[in-house]
Amino acid sequence: MAPRDLKQFFIPDRVVIFGASQNPDNLAGIIPLNNDLYGFKGEVYLVGKNGGRIGDRPIYRSVEEIGTAPDLAVLLIPADTIPATMTACGKAGIKSVVIETGGFSEFGDERRSLEREILHVAGEWGMTVMGPNCIGVINMENGLALPFVPLDKQKGPAGSVSIISQSGGIIRDILKRSDLENLALNKVVSIGNKLMLDENDILEYLIGDPGTRSIGIYLESFGDGKRLVSLAENTEKPVIALKANRAGPGNETARFHTSALAGNDEVADAALRQAGVLRASTTEDMINWLKIFTLPAMRGPNLMAMARSGGQCVLLSDAAFRYGLRFAGLPESVAGMIRKNVRAGVIRLSNPLDVGDIFDIGLYRDLIELSLLEPGVDGLIFYHEFERGPGEPWARQLIHNARELSMRHEKPVALCMMPDRESYFAMREFEPYPIFPDADSATEALAISRRHFSRMSGRESARRQPGTLRVIIGPGTGKQKGVDGGGHAGHVPGIADVRATLELLARYDLPLPGYALVRTVEEGIEAARRIGYPVALKQSSPHVVHKSDLNAVLLNLADEAALKRAFNALQAEEYLIQQMVSGGHETIVGCRNDPEFGQVVLFGMGGIFVEVLRDASIRLLPIGLPDAREMISEIRGSKLLQGFRGSEPADVDAIASCLVAVSRLFQEHPEISTLDINPLIALPAGRGCLVVDARMERA
Amino acid sequence: MAPRDLKQFFIPDRVVIFGASQNPDNLAGIIPLNNDLYGFKGEVYLVGKNGGRIGDRPIYRSVEEIGTAPDLAVLLIPADTIPATMTACGKAGIKSVVIETGGFSEFGDERRSLEREILHVAGEWGMTVMGPNCIGVINMENGLALPFVPLDKQKGPAGSVSIISQSGGIIRDILKRSDLENLALNKVVSIGNKLMLDENDILEYLIGDPGTRSIGIYLESFGDGKRLVSLAENTEKPVIALKANRAGPGNETARFHTSALAGNDEVADAALRQAGVLRASTTEDMINWLKIFTLPAMRGPNLMAMARSGGQCVLLSDAAFRYGLRFAGLPESVAGMIRKNVRAGVIRLSNPLDVGDIFDIGLYRDLIELSLLEPGVDGLIFYHEFERGPGEPWARQLIHNARELSMRHEKPVALCMMPDRESYFAMREFEPYPIFPDADSATEALAISRRHFSRMSGRESARRQPGTLRVIIGPGTGKQKGVDGGGHAGHVPGIADVRATLELLARYDLPLPGYALVRTVEEGIEAARRIGYPVALKQSSPHVVHKSDLNAVLLNLADEAALKRAFNALQAEEYLIQQMVSGGHETIVGCRNDPEFGQVVLFGMGGIFVEVLRDASIRLLPIGLPDAREMISEIRGSKLLQGFRGSEPADVDAIASCLVAVSRLFQEHPEISTLDINPLIALPAGRGCLVVDARMERA
Repeated sequence: MAPRDLKQFFIPDRVVIFGASQNPDNLAGIIPLNNDLYGFKGEVYLVGKNGGRIGDRPIYRSVEEIGTAPDLAVLLIPADTIPATMTACGKAGIKSVVIETGGFSEFGDERRSLEREILHVAGEWGMTVMGPNCIGVINMENGLALPFVPLDKQKGPAGSVSIISQSGGIIRDILKRSDLENLALNKVVSIGNKLMLDENDILEYLIGDPGTRSIGIYLESFGDGKRLVSLAENTEKPVIALKANRAGPGNETARFHTSALAGNDEVADAALRQAGVLRASTTEDMINWLKIFTLPAMRGPNLMAMARSGGQCVLLSDAAFRYGLRFAGLPESVAGMIRKNVRAGVIRLSNPLDVGDIFDIGLYRDLIELSLLEPGVDGLIFYHEFERGPGEPWARQLIHNARELSMRHEKPVALCMMPDRESYFAMREFEPYPIFPDADSATEALAISRRHFSRMSGRESARRQPGTLRVIIGPGTGKQKGVDGGGHAGHVPGIADVRATLELLARYDLPLPGYALVRTVEEGIEAARRIGYPVALKQSSPHVVHKSDLNAVLLNLADEAALKRAFNALQAEEYLIQQMVSGGHETIVGCRNDPEFGQVVLFGMGGIFVEVLRDASIRLLPIGLPDAREMISEIRGSKLLQGFRGSEPADVDAIASCLVAVSRLFQEHPEISTLDINPLIALPAGRGCLVVDARMERA
Repeated sequence: MAPRDLKQFFIPDRVVIFGASQNPDNLAGIIPLNNDLYGFKGEVYLVGKNGGRIGDRPIYRSVEEIGTAPDLAVLLIPADTIPATMTACGKAGIKSVVIETGGFSEFGDERRSLEREILHVAGEWGMTVMGPNCIGVINMENGLALPFVPLDKQKGPAGSVSIISQSGGIIRDILKRSDLENLALNKVVSIGNKLMLDENDILEYLIGDPGTRSIGIYLESFGDGKRLVSLAENTEKPVIALKANRAGPGNETARFHTSALAGNDEVADAALRQAGVLRASTTEDMINWLKIFTLPAMRGPNLMAMARSGGQCVLLSDAAFRYGLRFAGLPESVAGMIRKNVRAGVIRLSNPLDVGDIFDIGLYRDLIELSLLEPGVDGLIFYHEFERGPGEPWARQLIHNARELSMRHEKPVALCMMPDRESYFAMREFEPYPIFPDADSATEALAISRRHFSRMSGRESARRQPGTLRVIIGPGTGKQKGVDGGGHAGHVPGIADVRATLELLARYDLPLPGYALVRTVEEGIEAARRIGYPVALKQSSPHVVHKSDLNAVLLNLADEAALKRAFNALQAEEYLIQQMVSGGHETIVGCRNDPEFGQVVLFGMGGIFVEVLRDASIRLLPIGLPDAREMISEIRGSKLLQGFRGSEPADVDAIASCLVAVSRLFQEHPEISTLDINPLIALPAGRGCLVVDARMERA
């Protein structure tokens, strides 16, 4: 599908608003006022069935009456009149429609037929629809302002930050909050019920939009998680997502055993991280993070910090520790400048640097500049107060210098300034430069900038690639649970047959311990002789997901006598005999289809690590060997695999190869909905790993 | 020691400021101006060697010249002139002295002798000293304002929140931030270098102070952690601590193996939690949390929430999930009121309740009141905007109603209101009632209130008590590492002798597997026969902390032949033979003396749980059985002990008894500086636990 042309939603020449009336409570009538307030230069026409005027504008009784074809229609009319009005728009040649009316599927399924009708009319006339249940678009560049709620005018010119939101209420919060913080916006889009256009369509437009340099998204549900990931992965513009509804009902539904360990929100988290999307938890965080992207990039972890009190230096230290930044050694140039200008013993030469006893704004400027000139300094924080009175010109000068030096040396200078009431907004308005409210938010913002830009610089090497396989078949001796592909076909519909499962795994070179499927003791004894004792014996029924819970598995059968007793004890139609695997670490590999992000793979250590500690790594498919290695190393439990306290390190290369092979198998068999390998036993380095138990479900 | 009488620091009748001069840069001269601004009714005298006047006040050349005895002296004079001035104060009968001068031990050890001299003079004259390097006291009740930095006057009358801070700079931040948030303060105390008075002395005063209802403390180091814990434990006033310097140098020093697993900051965290101190990370959090304590208590986890948009409802849901609160079912009374007043289908009947389409402030009031009347609702959040224009009287009414209903029904109503620039401060000043800036901070604050008050209500039952012991001696068979008390006395000074360690453990009824200390193969064979095979053999040398790393332990010796081979392989002067313990879970118990909080005990699961995952619980001693059970259940790894996936649950009672016994041993032997039991093997329920390896160090 070719990308939709959304130009008319943002830069129309002629906009028509449906639903206008002279009634003082009329909401549609607010829209032209907003456009006037924001200085929209295009034409705004009003249509309403009772006619009349709002200000200078006549209210036409129909779109035909206007006499010229608008580029964009905004509908704020009763829901059931929308299809007819859209048809009229279609006849008038309008291709872009914003439906702001609410009361659709968000109020129940009975309204879905109306939504279908709208889609039908749109299809008929080749229209693109935004909404319903939204407040439209604000474009600070041309003054287009479609919300039906009264807006305040943002101070100053258009900025570089654009916003997408699924909730109109949150847009209003974000507008207010960015105004309070003097964060200049560029475009603001409310997508509402996403009947046709979703966040991805808008994101795609904004990624291509020269006026937009960073993007904040508020979402309650993903339109198409995979597309979001692919769009975000392929832009250098920072994308900050506040994905709410974390604890939504979907999150509590356990899909199937192992993979349900990854709650939906955990998959979303992993997917967004993989795509380089920065995930915020509050609108406050979102605004704070967007602020830092109006500054040059923080290209490394090395911080220089200055503050006017020792306590502020301590808080900056704690914050750097919290967000994973470190302090550069105090540059010799900075130390030298202080020695030259300040009486010895007054300033402790350290980083963070307490400059409380330097009363010289010119010296501050020099100290900032010298710091930024150091290759070992990636960014700087200056913590200062901002007060009316004699200190104010000084503080203003500091903001000015910080801005100028930051831009000149292309490194971020995060100003953290504490105003009093009277200077609270004056301080923010003084220059188009962000001010952070405290040590914590300034430091976090720099860490966020660093995360984004380190990803950008490492992007080529980290790009997902199909991996080459290197599976080492490990020797099998000792203890285990047993390969279990599920049981007899037909017993439990959907769960794949043991034989089929094992054969499919083998075709992808996944290492299996010796096994046989048998029906009688005699066949069993014969098979065990071939495989070699000790062996494990299991019912091959798929009814029990965790066999070991119910003693449906007998382990460590050392000889023929033990095997015979085991056959007697189990009493099944068909049995799986399997070579025991001794030693090694239990790991888990799971694949599933996430409803929002598509195929994902999960890796973790066995036991309580995944299920209780939720210590797992997740990736969207496909993955290559570098991804697999990253998945293994990023779980906390990977210390166990690295050889904890002198124990032998595990064969991490073999696990990585298995992860890639399992993922490829899953990708190439879309009929499989879930695949769990639990455990995959990781043997010591050089000895490979073994798939000891597996379970596969067909869609 | 009797508590110091600090009355004169807070409610003096006559204050004398030393260091005043007519020089316009004179800092001491700012102090009388602050007192005038705050409306201090007592007398403020100035002393300075050059005499003169500041405003109406003469500058006396000495304290004698004043002609009357002040109650409180404030010194802002060169450091080396302080002892002589203190002596003059002593002669004049002054017992309370604030030293604001800086440049003492914070600038290096050479100034310590001056500090000693100050303490000496103070002792001579029975004086109490606050500071040095501080900005003194502000008491909003009587207008006493001792800082030498120009202050803004807090608007409105004195509040109920008092602040203690080790940093003067942070006091200024807190003053500004609480003014911005309209949080009314009561007393503010800067303790500086804590030469004589530390945070605990001030805390004790404020706990007894009727004007103070909640207390915020900013600290960079603990004066006496144990005393802080004991004071906080014994007050119902909420204490919120911002203990900074988390990543301080002390935190990186590993003291000794197992107990160093608890970094200092982790001990501080545990101790503060145990004492019910609420630990904040930023001044912003501190102010936010202090705000909630100006409201009635949140006595349970059940929340009712209302907002003016669906998006805000979603953000409130996420925040409740994040902070462990839950939503009450929508009260029938509330649903009924909506049905009666609002057209069906306009409002979805749920909690959080989106009231965006109700335009009736009276109905809001009723919905709030009906909710608060429900026994199943413990607190309420209302998320609303605050704008100039027609909506403003409505928003003001909402604040008024929230305050009135909250007080009347003794449940918190947290208002989360989004102002625009013009109403930003007006909204906050309208009533002495806190406004929260967003869903997250309002919800977190309610969760903090709940945490504090649920602790208060559960206090009696949770109070630490000496426990009665019930140690089950478990059977010993199988695999283990071996009891190791350390080695030969004298080889490594400080580490206790194996025999002494084992005997001491046995005296406290700690369950040990069978063991013997032998010097020859023959003795060994004899001992093993008595203990029963399989056994473990170890060198009993204390040189190696983790023997198993170096193969200084031979396990699972099944018979005499294996034992003989082991003797040959090890070649030591003395050997420990120990019965093997099979099965069970490895746990770790460690005791140590924390420099700040005194004796502490740590519990965790073996392997990577404590060392890598830092999954451990820590308590100050003494502990009773209920504490021990809590310690076991609060670690994430305790799932393993509860019987994970059908495995047998471990003998948690026995572990708890061991924790209490080890703690008692440690308490009753103050000469022991560290005691590590690693592992303590927990056997299945009813079979006890076994101390398999122990290490004890004498101070």
